[in-house]
Amino acid sequence: MNHQPSDHELQSDLQPVSWEDGKVKLIDQTLIPDEFVTLEFDDYKDVVHAICTMQVRGAPAIGVTAALGIALAAQTIDAPDSEQFMHQLEPIAEEFRQTRPTAVNLFWAIDRMLRIAREYAHLPIIELRATLVDEALDILQDDIRINRQLGMNGANLLKDGDTVLTHCNAGALATAGYGTALGVIRAAVEQGKRIKVIADETRPRLQGMKLTAWELQQSGIPVTIITDNMAGYVMHQGMVNCVVVGADRIAANGDTANKVGTYGVAVLAKAHGIPFYVAAPMSTVDLSIPDGKHIIIEERCPTEVTHIGEIRIAPKGVPVLNPAFDVTPAEYIAGIITERGVLRPPYTESLIQPNTHHQSPTIQED
Amino acid sequence: MNHQPSDHELQSDLQPVSWEDGKVKLIDQTLIPDEFVTLEFDDYKDVVHAICTMQVRGAPAIGVTAALGIALAAQTIDAPDSEQFMHQLEPIAEEFRQTRPTAVNLFWAIDRMLRIAREYAHLPIIELRATLVDEALDILQDDIRINRQLGMNGANLLKDGDTVLTHCNAGALATAGYGTALGVIRAAVEQGKRIKVIADETRPRLQGMKLTAWELQQSGIPVTIITDNMAGYVMHQGMVNCVVVGADRIAANGDTANKVGTYGVAVLAKAHGIPFYVAAPMSTVDLSIPDGKHIIIEERCPTEVTHIGEIRIAPKGVPVLNPAFDVTPAEYIAGIITERGVLRPPYTESLIQPNTHHQSPTIQED
Repeated sequence: MNHQPSDHELQSDLQPVSWEDGKVKLIDQTLIPDEFVTLEFDDYKDVVHAICTMQVRGAPAIGVTAALGIALAAQTIDAPDSEQFMHQLEPIAEEFRQTRPTAVNLFWAIDRMLRIAREYAHLPIIELRATLVDEALDILQDDIRINRQLGMNGANLLKDGDTVLTHCNAGALATAGYGTALGVIRAAVEQGKRIKVIADETRPRLQGMKLTAWELQQSGIPVTIITDNMAGYVMHQGMVNCVVVGADRIAANGDTANKVGTYGVAVLAKAHGIPFYVAAPMSTVDLSIPDGKHIIIEERCPTEVTHIGEIRIAPKGVPVLNPAFDVTPAEYIAGIITERGVLRPPYTESLIQPNTHHQSPTIQED
Repeated sequence: MNHQPSDHELQSDLQPVSWEDGKVKLIDQTLIPDEFVTLEFDDYKDVVHAICTMQVRGAPAIGVTAALGIALAAQTIDAPDSEQFMHQLEPIAEEFRQTRPTAVNLFWAIDRMLRIAREYAHLPIIELRATLVDEALDILQDDIRINRQLGMNGANLLKDGDTVLTHCNAGALATAGYGTALGVIRAAVEQGKRIKVIADETRPRLQGMKLTAWELQQSGIPVTIITDNMAGYVMHQGMVNCVVVGADRIAANGDTANKVGTYGVAVLAKAHGIPFYVAAPMSTVDLSIPDGKHIIIEERCPTEVTHIGEIRIAPKGVPVLNPAFDVTPAEYIAGIITERGVLRPPYTESLIQPNTHHQSPTIQED
């Protein structure tokens, strides 16, 4: 464990989640681009609520946030011994586990925090609390480092002048900073390549329009918004060179759950001969499930579809479906961009081989 | 010409456009489902404006509306002779022609009105005016009859228990009544089949959510709303038996322009082995163009994408694309459902053969 995360150059300009003065700080992503509000939490229950209501969202970001939330909760646990401590910490971890069912990074981060808590349970409680904060900050720093590494790995797939279509937000806002899909684009831009982005608006919550377009605009990377149903049009017009999206969970065979609509984009990309890439840290890979059929898809509140803010847009009384994610079968995915390198099919092999392309100093387990 | 359109049984319950007491009446479709307001126009310029602003929309409906608008304009033309009459009427027809570029029914209806005006220009002006009203009402009545006929033809493609996915609104509201794609569904329901509908919400203007879902709800036909990007999900889940959509223009080879997003649905349908049908009157067929590359795609105002009502949803300053239509290549289309029957590939042959399947009494030219 590195107890002194300090690499300043690893900080992203945009940090959706951080730890300051013993509090968890989150940018309220439900208010962007209208307002830029940073929330401060000293009660872990508010962090749980922030994940449920998507004030923070994006698979890596909610993993980091849950880790910080558990560290926050640990500060208020007063227990005479390690057994009592774990007895109080585990139900709290379970609360975080119940927030969102699809993104595996959440469970991965929670498990990592619990493992550390058990491992260091013999320490005096003050030290144990500090150790959990350090571990959560390690997870946060690792995420930024990993994103920069996978960004570099993926940047080599983009050519100067390319236009990349992306869906939802897999940017700095979806991670601890820098981003996964947008990290690939950032890294290509940092290499001096001129990259343009087409951002699907991503109904129902419009993360593409509200977060991706805003984030890229802040970074000075040219971006154009389309409605989700225009993806076919822009591909048919020859306006798209490749697709890069994030992921919420990747099964052992490469099947990938990501924001609903990703699958449709993948089918369209294949029909147009456009390469479709997934960019995600290895913590998104869930080797415990053989394929996408085993991924639980979160069904969210119908009002996300029927209302924009307070305004009802749908007729009253008409049923609505609202799956938050869909699964893109591996055969549509040209490559999975990770901190280990660009993994290629067959994913059943490449996902389990360590460090296939690029050695990264950041991926060793603690 | 039938100067007495009166077939009461041909009336649809829902008539988006009509002629009453010398005025053009339109249901303001921009207000549905929140309000149901019928507008009355005695100045043709207001009818032009209503088409531009999509208070009336849908290819057949705007054709009928333009015809009635030209008839309305004719009532106020005072000319000493037929030459002077046409000299005033033609620029008015041109104003209607400029309203929307993609739907060919508009140009077809305008041309039909001008042809009649020229043919009967020798009549006393009062009779000529009445003749033009009669012709516009013929176009309106023909449209309802044709929709019922094509509905019956298409209904045979649907089985009891089927779920049909549709995009945008090709219902009573998009026509003089009854509808094209929704006419097929209505006819199947009238045959006693239990049909369910999944309606794409159809960004940016949400005609699927606001018009199709509302219209089907009014008719007691079960409908569920999805965002456009969920079409792949519901198809992959095996929830869709076939797709039926309308059309704004069909080229000689069968390439079909329809509301943006239709192409994406067609590609997804093909990937899932789901038949994709277009339902449209023969007046939507434009034999003057060999293929879809020649169809002009209307680009509409970015605020349709960036705003919901008065509320801005997109970040300021980010460019937006807003093509109103896309073109679905003929190879994705399993059949074109018309009043002549269900036309099958190769469309270069089937589109030019008269009355291939079902003889309709309504399609002879006047």
